Amino acid sequence: MIRTMRAAILAIGSELLGTDRLDTNSLALTESLERHGVELVAKQVVGDSVSRIATTLRNLIADVDLLLVTGGLGPTSDDVTREAVAQATGRGLGEDPTIVENIRRKFASFGREMPEVNRRQAMVIDGAEVIENPRGTAPGLVLSLAEATVFLFPGVPRELARMIEHRLESWLTENADGAPQSRLTLRVACLPESEVEELLAPVYAEFGEVGLLASPGDIRIRLRSADPEELARAARAVESCLGDSVYGRGDETLEEVVGRQLRERGLTLATAESCTGGWIAQRLTAVPGSSDYFLGAIVAYDDRVKIEQLGVPPETLASHGAVSRQVVEAMAEGAAERLQADWAVAVSGVAGPGGGSDEKPVGTVDVALARGDEGTDYRRLQLPGDRRTIRWLTTQWALDLIRRRLAEGAD
Amino acid sequence: MIRTMRAAILAIGSELLGTDRLDTNSLALTESLERHGVELVAKQVVGDSVSRIATTLRNLIADVDLLLVTGGLGPTSDDVTREAVAQATGRGLGEDPTIVENIRRKFASFGREMPEVNRRQAMVIDGAEVIENPRGTAPGLVLSLAEATVFLFPGVPRELARMIEHRLESWLTENADGAPQSRLTLRVACLPESEVEELLAPVYAEFGEVGLLASPGDIRIRLRSADPEELARAARAVESCLGDSVYGRGDETLEEVVGRQLRERGLTLATAESCTGGWIAQRLTAVPGSSDYFLGAIVAYDDRVKIEQLGVPPETLASHGAVSRQVVEAMAEGAAERLQADWAVAVSGVAGPGGGSDEKPVGTVDVALARGDEGTDYRRLQLPGDRRTIRWLTTQWALDLIRRRLAEGAD
Repeated sequence: MIRTMRAAILAIGSELLGTDRLDTNSLALTESLERHGVELVAKQVVGDSVSRIATTLRNLIADVDLLLVTGGLGPTSDDVTREAVAQATGRGLGEDPTIVENIRRKFASFGREMPEVNRRQAMVIDGAEVIENPRGTAPGLVLSLAEATVFLFPGVPRELARMIEHRLESWLTENADGAPQSRLTLRVACLPESEVEELLAPVYAEFGEVGLLASPGDIRIRLRSADPEELARAARAVESCLGDSVYGRGDETLEEVVGRQLRERGLTLATAESCTGGWIAQRLTAVPGSSDYFLGAIVAYDDRVKIEQLGVPPETLASHGAVSRQVVEAMAEGAAERLQADWAVAVSGVAGPGGGSDEKPVGTVDVALARGDEGTDYRRLQLPGDRRTIRWLTTQWALDLIRRRLAEGAD
Repeated sequence: MIRTMRAAILAIGSELLGTDRLDTNSLALTESLERHGVELVAKQVVGDSVSRIATTLRNLIADVDLLLVTGGLGPTSDDVTREAVAQATGRGLGEDPTIVENIRRKFASFGREMPEVNRRQAMVIDGAEVIENPRGTAPGLVLSLAEATVFLFPGVPRELARMIEHRLESWLTENADGAPQSRLTLRVACLPESEVEELLAPVYAEFGEVGLLASPGDIRIRLRSADPEELARAARAVESCLGDSVYGRGDETLEEVVGRQLRERGLTLATAESCTGGWIAQRLTAVPGSSDYFLGAIVAYDDRVKIEQLGVPPETLASHGAVSRQVVEAMAEGAAERLQADWAVAVSGVAGPGGGSDEKPVGTVDVALARGDEGTDYRRLQLPGDRRTIRWLTTQWALDLIRRRLAEGAD
């Protein structure tokens, strides 16, 4: 049996040890490793200290087959990755005149002279291969040692992305002997994680690599396998367990699914929003081309706007309150009529932290969907969480209600 | 001179080595360390392997004074932190009957019996102090070794947060001898990072700890000092360099600042939005109590909505196009009139990726602010980036325009 290649990622930069920034570059590198069946065994972050970087490098080189290093290739005195790697590997460091010339030309193309500090970026570790950087000034380096191969990448995400695509990928294709893994993600809205887990029990029993990634109101079911047919079978098993709760696959968002359905059925949509303050409309219009089916919204935060812009009868508001079936249905029907939309969704609720009562505590939200001659749906929700979560979950429930109704009509 | 205490953070969990999740717990821990002047020298993530965790622990314990470990304290066989720490330190591991009883009671309070697996969470390393976990079942542990102190925390953020507050903070107060650092953040919208850097040159020259944290359309200027008076002087220096471009301090968001100003001046606001699709209204209503000054919005995505709901003359639309001074001013004035608001802001633009022309390329955005008798402001923007960035920057520019105008009228 061939041993799987093992890799580690090292991010260098004191700014990554503060309270604001995380090393997100490792996610892009991990994707590439997973695609080629390479096992990532550790991630590390260290600051801009030559001795500490060198020690960490020595430990990692002894431990893994492939070491991916990001950051510390800039032109300032803080950027010490090259020096630290030279020290850790006992190699020399010399200026490469071709790289100096390249950097000089890049500055010249902006009409500027190369600052002397940028010469640092032309320093190459003896025996290293240079990776071009058309998106910046710092080239990458690849060092093949007896124990491990070490890649040095810049920390700027778009410069790194290009080097992954143009050098790391081909290196992995040539050198990684692991079974490449395929992945498939299925997405579910508005079900609690524990319920999804329970429903998926038969899938867990049959398939190994099933993972749940839960965020409020949205769960990704991640399937992974080296065998594409097994992956397809697992996906079918998930769908048979969860039925129409699965709203989509891969990266397609709920608002994109709703948009696609509306376009397919040739329907237009409007929204009337109180507690969400326009968030449903914002999500729908985040999708390019949404003007084909989305007409607009009335954000009726003030009750007078509900009356004057949506035609909610003042006596309905007075007798039932803004969070009521009567009001939210009138809002939906009013929005459909005034904006001349085929369908309109309306929401009104208590997002908190104030405004709750015994009868309608914080988290009480009414949703209505006016569907022309097909009638108006209504649903009352009791949502958990803080103001932001309640507002977000309201947009999820509203969009998912539209999706389910559109799916019914699509046979 | 007393040596500053040095710390490392180790996050345990194979799920933190995938493509979806980052170790975000380290940010909360780092905040606590910074508050007490402790230097964070490294962060690591390793998977659920006893031998790897043990090796990593041994290296870190030899290197730092304080080691903060998160994750791997759950009840399943994947949760091996306790075993690995016992192995790395050569200590024994024994079940604590009091903890078993506590866990049993927690399950009983939900009307459930404790599953046998949860006994694992009652295993305590010899000589360790137990940290209570009222928000979950896994207690934390503190181990005082000759070389270093090791904290073991659960990976669940809210359980961790409580243990930081109730145990780590008091430990740091007693044991950390570093100078506690004070921090102050000033915030700027709609200026490019390079311009802010240039304007701040005198501040950089005078003060040591000045950092910029830039995200699209929003820059945080972070000041840090052990001396509160120096911090106040640095803040005044920043304000004198940047003038009224500084919109606020600390965590107050731009929409909160605008809300506070509107409340102070007793004015009401409405929005009329095309390319942002309701995002400005969404941000304004994210602030609790915003119903005191925010009335509502007309999202006029379709041109017919601009005509019928905002009163934009069809001939203005036909002759100037939806992205034009004439249309956006009519939208703002129409929204103010129809929603009976004192002020109304309107935006219309080309968010892309389609819809651009030579005359109005993607990123062209018109903003108008109707201020009743005080007249209507207009501004044309050319914004960079993708659809999401252009829409986001539009909301920043619109809110910042309102803020500047409100500031002029104050006092």
